[in-house]
Amino acid sequence: MPISEDTFLALDIGGTNVKSGLISRAGEILSFDSFPTSKWGGPEALIDMIIRQLKTLWNDSDTAHRPRALAIGAPGWILRREGVVVMAPNIPGWKALPITRLMSEALDIPAVLENDANLYALGEWLIGAGKGCANEITLTLGTGVGGGLILEGRLWEGAFTSAAEVGHIPLGGVNRLCGCGRTGCLETVASAIGMAAIAREWLAAGRETLYKGDPAAVDTREMLRLAGLGDPMSLSIFSDAGKAIGFVLAGVFNLLGLQMAVIGGGGAGAFDFMAPGIMEVLSRHLVTAGVDQIQVVKGALGGNAPLIGAAAFLNESGY
Amino acid sequence: MPISEDTFLALDIGGTNVKSGLISRAGEILSFDSFPTSKWGGPEALIDMIIRQLKTLWNDSDTAHRPRALAIGAPGWILRREGVVVMAPNIPGWKALPITRLMSEALDIPAVLENDANLYALGEWLIGAGKGCANEITLTLGTGVGGGLILEGRLWEGAFTSAAEVGHIPLGGVNRLCGCGRTGCLETVASAIGMAAIAREWLAAGRETLYKGDPAAVDTREMLRLAGLGDPMSLSIFSDAGKAIGFVLAGVFNLLGLQMAVIGGGGAGAFDFMAPGIMEVLSRHLVTAGVDQIQVVKGALGGNAPLIGAAAFLNESGY
Repeated sequence: MPISEDTFLALDIGGTNVKSGLISRAGEILSFDSFPTSKWGGPEALIDMIIRQLKTLWNDSDTAHRPRALAIGAPGWILRREGVVVMAPNIPGWKALPITRLMSEALDIPAVLENDANLYALGEWLIGAGKGCANEITLTLGTGVGGGLILEGRLWEGAFTSAAEVGHIPLGGVNRLCGCGRTGCLETVASAIGMAAIAREWLAAGRETLYKGDPAAVDTREMLRLAGLGDPMSLSIFSDAGKAIGFVLAGVFNLLGLQMAVIGGGGAGAFDFMAPGIMEVLSRHLVTAGVDQIQVVKGALGGNAPLIGAAAFLNESGY
Repeated sequence: MPISEDTFLALDIGGTNVKSGLISRAGEILSFDSFPTSKWGGPEALIDMIIRQLKTLWNDSDTAHRPRALAIGAPGWILRREGVVVMAPNIPGWKALPITRLMSEALDIPAVLENDANLYALGEWLIGAGKGCANEITLTLGTGVGGGLILEGRLWEGAFTSAAEVGHIPLGGVNRLCGCGRTGCLETVASAIGMAAIAREWLAAGRETLYKGDPAAVDTREMLRLAGLGDPMSLSIFSDAGKAIGFVLAGVFNLLGLQMAVIGGGGAGAFDFMAPGIMEVLSRHLVTAGVDQIQVVKGALGGNAPLIGAAAFLNESGY
């Protein structure tokens, strides 16, 4: 394992898995570990497990080659500057958790906190599908829909605790209820939860589909398999998700004059089924550039994008 | 007239009037002139008139106190870096016009070209309603709808020839035809042209209104007067325009985490009638901040905002 002074630690705390990595400044993952988030009872046990996991990534008795810093990616409502996870809906018991202080003390290195979708975007920008593009947005299609915005080669943070909340940009004429309590958010039609809900309605209405399983159990993984077989339900839902993404991207591109959008997250597995809808609606509304001057591409890094993005974030943060 | 070396010339070429000013670095208008755009036949005559107008703003025999540079604000499709007006729909005959070169040669000072709505936004940011706010957007409600975006205290230009094209951000569920050839743009319901078209439909349908004039002649100026008298047509159209603006601003705020939106242009005269609709829809969709942390305000500078913004633009451009 090549250890140098120019390594970082990265932590990606998801609702499903906690991933960690030792990464080079260039974004190479030198060592990696992952465990299921839900396996660990209370919040303290989870924190202890994370600390143990991070310490196994490098030989922590070798203090001459200690990683320079740790970047923590977390979902939910965070206070970046304060290093606090205010609330993470998918991680029971994490409320007002001063995670950077806890990690920094346990590991004896500086720690910084960032939204997981922002780290994802930085990863795709550093060595992924958006490499070398100065002005781009990444959408993360997961349980929900997140995003990260790169402007002039830097992560855009905005004036408050969050920005690039593309999952909650409203779709006009859509009134579906979102997990956030609002209605008509992009997330209601383009997230795994949203697409499964629409599939259940399709099934309840007795519409044509190849899906023959329990309606309550329909999910995007199965829909992706069925879409490949020509299932009208799955194709329709992915196409509508694409059109909604195209609608939101039209607004984003017309506002910012971006060059590229990267579609990442687990839902990007359905990129080929979504892309025609994305491009149809985007090209219908794009004014800031010709449609041949912009690109909408599938993310290249998959689930490790946030760990890789941590390198860019720590670089940018001066470590 | 106080002339110093730190003065600039500013030119705002509109479809209705050509305005020019001698301005201080701080944005003070030291002298001002205006003439109707349409009065001057061909493109060459208009250019000659503009040059004469600019030369009367200061004593041009006093070469020791020559203005440092000229900033030109123009509508339509421009190439900023090349200094070329590709096409200005409201100025017949202006096609592929190298305006910065023509002006620079005639006045013997450097000249730069910028979108008029961007200069407007810079004016409101420099000394207007958005003064001191680092992250804000200005909407200009005029014949069309334009915009300018300030990020971290600088005008955002984007990767292409235009950005902040808020007038062409799509409204979902709205299919009105826009002057740009697309459908459902914000401009179709919030511009003077759009609102007059909706009023004509209201009149053709025989719906209740205080307007008793020629349906073909209805305009936003008269609608503003009638709204003050409680006219249901004018109040409804301004309210719907406000809701559409709120919808677009929700997307913009959720994407960028902005602190403020300034509503400028002639249509801002109806701000008080639009504001409840703006805030109703914006607050329903805002996620990046509490609604009490952001502001939507009426522009403070009126039609001189682009001339004042020219000072900020020339400052930023290094003159």
